[in-house]
Amino acid sequence: MRDENPNSWEARADTNTFYGFTDLPSIKERGTVVLTHGEGPYVFDVHGRRYLDANSGLWNMVAGFDHAGLAEAAKAQYDRFPGYHAFFGRMSDQTVMLSEKLVEVSPYERGKVFYTNSGSEANDTMVKMLWFLGGAEGQPQRRKIITRKNGYHGVTVVSASMTGKPYNSVFGLPLDGFIHLTCPHYWREGLEGETEAEFTKRMAQELEDVIAREGADTIAGFFAEPVMGAGGVIPPSEGYFQAIAPILKKHGIPLVADEVICGFGRTGELWGCQTYDFMPDAIISSKNLTAGYFPMGAVILGPELSDRLQAASEAIEEFPHGFTASGHPVGSAIALKAIDVILNEGLLENVRALTPKFEANMARLAENPNIGEWRGKGLMGALEAVKDKDTKTPFDSSLSVSERIANTCTDHGLICRPLGQSVVLCPPFIMTEPQMDEMFEKLEAALKKVFAEVA
Amino acid sequence: MRDENPNSWEARADTNTFYGFTDLPSIKERGTVVLTHGEGPYVFDVHGRRYLDANSGLWNMVAGFDHAGLAEAAKAQYDRFPGYHAFFGRMSDQTVMLSEKLVEVSPYERGKVFYTNSGSEANDTMVKMLWFLGGAEGQPQRRKIITRKNGYHGVTVVSASMTGKPYNSVFGLPLDGFIHLTCPHYWREGLEGETEAEFTKRMAQELEDVIAREGADTIAGFFAEPVMGAGGVIPPSEGYFQAIAPILKKHGIPLVADEVICGFGRTGELWGCQTYDFMPDAIISSKNLTAGYFPMGAVILGPELSDRLQAASEAIEEFPHGFTASGHPVGSAIALKAIDVILNEGLLENVRALTPKFEANMARLAENPNIGEWRGKGLMGALEAVKDKDTKTPFDSSLSVSERIANTCTDHGLICRPLGQSVVLCPPFIMTEPQMDEMFEKLEAALKKVFAEVA
Repeated sequence: MRDENPNSWEARADTNTFYGFTDLPSIKERGTVVLTHGEGPYVFDVHGRRYLDANSGLWNMVAGFDHAGLAEAAKAQYDRFPGYHAFFGRMSDQTVMLSEKLVEVSPYERGKVFYTNSGSEANDTMVKMLWFLGGAEGQPQRRKIITRKNGYHGVTVVSASMTGKPYNSVFGLPLDGFIHLTCPHYWREGLEGETEAEFTKRMAQELEDVIAREGADTIAGFFAEPVMGAGGVIPPSEGYFQAIAPILKKHGIPLVADEVICGFGRTGELWGCQTYDFMPDAIISSKNLTAGYFPMGAVILGPELSDRLQAASEAIEEFPHGFTASGHPVGSAIALKAIDVILNEGLLENVRALTPKFEANMARLAENPNIGEWRGKGLMGALEAVKDKDTKTPFDSSLSVSERIANTCTDHGLICRPLGQSVVLCPPFIMTEPQMDEMFEKLEAALKKVFAEVA
Repeated sequence: MRDENPNSWEARADTNTFYGFTDLPSIKERGTVVLTHGEGPYVFDVHGRRYLDANSGLWNMVAGFDHAGLAEAAKAQYDRFPGYHAFFGRMSDQTVMLSEKLVEVSPYERGKVFYTNSGSEANDTMVKMLWFLGGAEGQPQRRKIITRKNGYHGVTVVSASMTGKPYNSVFGLPLDGFIHLTCPHYWREGLEGETEAEFTKRMAQELEDVIAREGADTIAGFFAEPVMGAGGVIPPSEGYFQAIAPILKKHGIPLVADEVICGFGRTGELWGCQTYDFMPDAIISSKNLTAGYFPMGAVILGPELSDRLQAASEAIEEFPHGFTASGHPVGSAIALKAIDVILNEGLLENVRALTPKFEANMARLAENPNIGEWRGKGLMGALEAVKDKDTKTPFDSSLSVSERIANTCTDHGLICRPLGQSVVLCPPFIMTEPQMDEMFEKLEAALKKVFAEVA
C-alpha cells in the first residue's frame, strides 16, 4: 500500500514531519494520506482517491471543503485588510463587527469577547482570567480547576491538564490542582441496578464532596463540554447540568461551557448549553466559529464575568494578555460569514432535518452484537465496540478494533475516527441524504468485516 | 477626541470587547482606533486617518498591509483546499511542502517540523516535548525551564511563566520551576566599572551557578530570543551566546532559540541565531513565518532532538499532542509564499540596505539628553527615555513618558510602541527611504514635544 519512492509525497511527509496525534505504526505500514483538495464533504489525495470525510476534518469543516461563500469572504478580506492585531487600543472593523455578532447570537443579553487562535488557547486564557479574578478580588488561593474524565479541552500544558485523558501522563500532566470528576456516562459508569436519575444524583454528590474536600474557596472554575467530543462523543446523563449548576452557583464557582465542538449547531441548537438547557458563566468557542477556514478561538464572557473582569482590569489599567493574531481581520470576516451561513443558509436546519435519519441508522448499526451502545446528539455520534454486549466487556486493546474499522473505512473511501474502542461520526452540516447513506453503508461493511475477523 | 455616539465604532468596540494588552485609561480618553485597510506600511482608520505603522502590526506584517502576491497565494488556496488538519496520518500537500522548505531554510542539515497557531503555542509545545523526552529517557525530574528577565515567550500559562515580565504576577505566575536569569543588557545591568566582556562572563557564571544550585538533571531546557523583542528590543551583550552555549551543552540542556520576532530576516540574517552565530537545538517560529497573513507557529527540531523525540514517540506509538489547525493548508500556502517573498523579492536585502540609515537615525535621536541609549539590530530598535542620561535615572513612571510619546506620534499619523520607558521601532521590510524619513521626522517631533513637557 505504501509508496516507497523517496520522492513520494509519503516519504517527503515522513522526512520533515514530527507527527502529532498519529498512530506511528499505521504511518509505517500505510503511509501518510496527503490531501490536495475537496468537494462538499469529500476530500481527495495526491493519488486521486476520494474520501467521504465523516469527521468534518476535525469536527470543524461543517460547511464542507469548498464552500464558495466562505472562500469569497476570505478572499475579499485578503484584498481589503489581510492582517492586524487587537492590542494597544487598535483593532480592525471586522473584529468589532464579529464581537457584536457573537454577543448577539450568544445566550447572553450582553457580554464581552476575547479572541485567541484555538480552543486550547481559549481554555488556557479562561483559566488565566479566573486566576486573575481571584487575585484581584482578594482570593488568590482560588486556583483549582475542576473538569471531568474524558473531557477534552486542548493541548497547551494547562488545557491538557484540564483534559481527562490518561495519555497526558507521558508529559507528567496534569499539573497539580486540576481535578477530574467521574465521566457522566451512564452506560459505562452506572452501577449495577442504578437508575439514570440515581446516577446523575451520584455525579452531583461527587461534585459536592470534592468541593467540600478541597474547599470551595480554592476552586477557580468548573469547565464542561455540553457533549464530550474527543472523549468519545458522550452526552451527559439525563438532568446532569440541572443537577450540578446549582451546586456550582451556591459555592460561587463559575461554570464554563467548552463549546468548541458543540457550538454553532452541532447538537441541533446553536449552543450545546441551549440543547441541555443551562446557562454557563462563559462560553469557549472555536472550530465551527470559522467552519475550519481559519484558526480562531473566542472566550465569550457572560454579563457577570464581563463586569468583574472589566473592574479588575481597570483597577490595574490593563489586562496583560493577548495573542498576536487575536481578532485577526481575515478570521473575523470569515467567522461573520460562517455564522451567517450556519444560521441563514440552511446548515442548522439541515442538522435538525438529518438527525432522525442519523439516529435511526446509528440505532440500526447498534443492533450488531459487537456494538455495546450508540450515543450522540444532533449530528455527532459514536458506536462503541464490545466483545460481549451483555457484560459490556471491551475487545482486547491489542486487537486495535476501532483503528481496524477506521482503516477499513479509509480503504473504501470513508474517513471516520477511532476513539478508544468506539468509532465516531460527525459529518459536515451540508451533508445530503444520499451522502449519509453512503457513509452508513461503508461503515456497516467495515464493521461486518472487522467483527468477522476478531469476534 | 473620542466619538461619544453610542453607534460609533469606538462605542461598539467598547461594548463587546474585553481588551488585552491595552491601556484602559487611554481607551477611555481617546477611544479605540478601528482600522479598515492598509497600503504598504500604512493603515487607515474608520475616519479616514492614515498611520505609518512603524510596528509592522505586531512585528509581523513585514511585507506591508496589501502585498498582492501574499493575497494571491491565500486566495488561490482558499479556492483549492480551504482547511484541513494534520492528525491521524493525513495532511495537506501544502503542509508537506512547507515542512520541506522550513527544514531547507533552517540552519539544520535535517530536522522535523511541528505546527501550532502561534508562538505561544509553539513555546508551550516545546516545553511539553522536553517534558515528554525527560519521561521517555528515564529522567522525569527534568522539568525546570530557564529563561531570562525581559524575555518574552507568549501568554499561555506556560509561555507566560517563561516570560520574564513582572506583569504576570497578576495571574499568580510564573508557575514553580520557571527560572528567570538576569537580562543580558549591558547598559542597564552592567556594574560600575565592569567591561562588557566582564559582564558577559558574569552572565555565564550566573547560568553555571543556577545549574549547580538547581541540579543539571532537573533542567529541561533553556529558551532565549536572539534579540529580546517585547522586553524592549535588547540585543545580547557581546559574546553572550558563545559564552552560554558550551555551558548548556556540557550539562545536556537543550538550547531553544525563540525566533518568533527575529526569524525570517528581522536582524539582517534569515535567523537571529545566524546573526549571533550560535546553533540552537530547536527553533520556535511564528509571526514573519506568514508575514502576519495567517496565525501560524512552528517548532523546528534540529537533528538530535528530532531523533530523540521520534524514538520516544515510536516507543509509545504516538505523540499525543496537536492543534486542530496545526499545518492548516491556507497557512502553509501563505508561509511558502512569505518565505519566497522575503528571500527572493528583495525583502531581506532591503532590511540590510536600510539598516545603516536606520542606525544613523537612531544614533542621531539618541544624542537627545533625555535618551539614555539606542539599541537594536537590523530593522528593530529602541530608544530608552531617561530623566538623567549620566545616571541612567528613568522618568517617574506616573509621567507615562513612553505612552505620551507614542500617543503624540499616533496623533501625527505614526504608530510606534511604548515598552517600559522605551519607544520601539520595527518597520516592515518593504519600507522605502522616504517612509523611513517620515518615521524619524514624526518620532523626533514627538520626542521634542514630550520631553519639553516633562523634562
